[in-house]
Amino acid sequence: MEEYESILEHYVNLINERLVQIVKGREPKNLYEPIGYILSDGGKRVRPLLCMFACETVGGDPYEAIEAGVAVEILHNFTLVHDDIMDNSPLRRGKDTIHLKWDLPTAILSGDAMIGLALKALSNYSNYVNFGKMVEYFTYGFIEVCEGQALDMLFNNKKDVTEEEYFFMIHKKTAAILQTSLILGGLCGGAIERDIEYFKEFGFNLGIAFQLQDDLLDLTAEKSKLGKRIGNDIFEKKKTLIVILARNRVKNDEDRKLIDKIFSTEEVPAHLIPKYIEMFNRLGVFDDIKDIIRKYHKKAYEILSELPQNNGSKLLEYLLIKLNERSF
Amino acid sequence: MEEYESILEHYVNLINERLVQIVKGREPKNLYEPIGYILSDGGKRVRPLLCMFACETVGGDPYEAIEAGVAVEILHNFTLVHDDIMDNSPLRRGKDTIHLKWDLPTAILSGDAMIGLALKALSNYSNYVNFGKMVEYFTYGFIEVCEGQALDMLFNNKKDVTEEEYFFMIHKKTAAILQTSLILGGLCGGAIERDIEYFKEFGFNLGIAFQLQDDLLDLTAEKSKLGKRIGNDIFEKKKTLIVILARNRVKNDEDRKLIDKIFSTEEVPAHLIPKYIEMFNRLGVFDDIKDIIRKYHKKAYEILSELPQNNGSKLLEYLLIKLNERSF
Repeated sequence: MEEYESILEHYVNLINERLVQIVKGREPKNLYEPIGYILSDGGKRVRPLLCMFACETVGGDPYEAIEAGVAVEILHNFTLVHDDIMDNSPLRRGKDTIHLKWDLPTAILSGDAMIGLALKALSNYSNYVNFGKMVEYFTYGFIEVCEGQALDMLFNNKKDVTEEEYFFMIHKKTAAILQTSLILGGLCGGAIERDIEYFKEFGFNLGIAFQLQDDLLDLTAEKSKLGKRIGNDIFEKKKTLIVILARNRVKNDEDRKLIDKIFSTEEVPAHLIPKYIEMFNRLGVFDDIKDIIRKYHKKAYEILSELPQNNGSKLLEYLLIKLNERSF
Repeated sequence: MEEYESILEHYVNLINERLVQIVKGREPKNLYEPIGYILSDGGKRVRPLLCMFACETVGGDPYEAIEAGVAVEILHNFTLVHDDIMDNSPLRRGKDTIHLKWDLPTAILSGDAMIGLALKALSNYSNYVNFGKMVEYFTYGFIEVCEGQALDMLFNNKKDVTEEEYFFMIHKKTAAILQTSLILGGLCGGAIERDIEYFKEFGFNLGIAFQLQDDLLDLTAEKSKLGKRIGNDIFEKKKTLIVILARNRVKNDEDRKLIDKIFSTEEVPAHLIPKYIEMFNRLGVFDDIKDIIRKYHKKAYEILSELPQNNGSKLLEYLLIKLNERSF
């Protein structure tokens, strides 16, 4: 395990270096400074790691997949910049969001330019035989994440969101780009079609578990680790699975009032957040969400065993466990 | 000429059909309706036309370049959606802008998704030998247009903008994507390296002339044809070449006050627009801009003669003349 952790750290350092290099010295500064700001704020780099590990799993050199991983990481960070505007979020990874630190036009435009930079990173493979497929899967992840965000926004004004709709949305918003990471890595390593399919399935299950975990941590993590206010999803009236399950279970008026607030246009005052947490706990929602996460986690684990067994797939397994145990 | 006009119309109809098809039936509606709205509002479709004509010029089938043209047209329209937010523009081609007709998040997100759709259109060539180059030039146009917009925004708060800075900015903001259109068309038709270079140079000169013409029409077109308020650039305090040239020529206090207003944070009241027009005319700025346009136009014309002489290059010539003579 220690050995895997040090490989992971080594890769993360390399990825961070590349992310810094990509904007270094670029002009105009009003465009590239905000990009440098978000790209150097120390995310977990899950997507480029998945990309590199997937490449090694199919027999490729993981270092060859770095640029593809960087492309997906930049794409992911673009979504964060624009989502933070749309959601009116003040903080991201403990720092001011770009639209607050700079302004709205700067946040829109630097987000846009990041897509260009992501494509530029991807273009490092322009002479690969399967470059066409790489662009197709990059585009798939891109469109899915936009549609996922659109659905998420739609849910904000929706009086009723079903479990099914929630899962459909998070597949697009979260899982698709993880699928893209894995598939791009696989394609860098010359993966056969069957392994691409496994990566797709692995990414799906990992992604759903990842998002559910995120929803849970929004209410259960320590603020200092989370890098944003506790209960952010409640303030933003997100219809997470937590809320959907709780809504079906409330019996008394006090609970119902709390839940209805999320489906109304009223602002949720900060002092209610502990009440929400107490209610979700009491209704057994947190425990059930944990069970569902375990189910998806187990499925992802099983798919891993279908892939070639080597250092690459061991690292995928290590990351899967690590993400499941994360506290932020 | 009539023959060229009818070819042009025929192509524009095909392009418009494709643009409608691309969003038809796509879900979620809150994402794709605004995209359908802007893509069906009848732009001139200059970029896809350039793409198709360039393809034919190098001996390709112009119909084969439609998807590449559509990709660039969608990319172009994405920039319009986001620029209109950043510039706070109320009208585009005579219709409400998306951020006003819908809202800010919808305008940001539908702009984003358009990039995905553009990449999807481009991916129709994923099995072409020069697909790698196509993505590289698409990315070039993309990054340049973002940098151009960033410079344009920077100029908004700049006390002094030189002619050189202005040309540097419009090359990125306007000319680069025209270069991309031509080059992608060329690559669809299997262009040799030398012709790609000519397309680059042709697109540069056409683009500069096109932008200068746009700046001019902002103050000299008929409102009904322009589709936005007359003097929009003045309201938005754009440092166009018109303003830069005029600034160097003003002698009396009244003129200086008008010019200084553009470099200040004060709002420009609508009743002053005729005064600006009178001043620019009196200072000979409009005439000089027309001379400069002619120079770039002539250069573009000369480069055309270096390309293969056929129906494709004749159409490029026809479009060049038509754009130069346009009144909106």
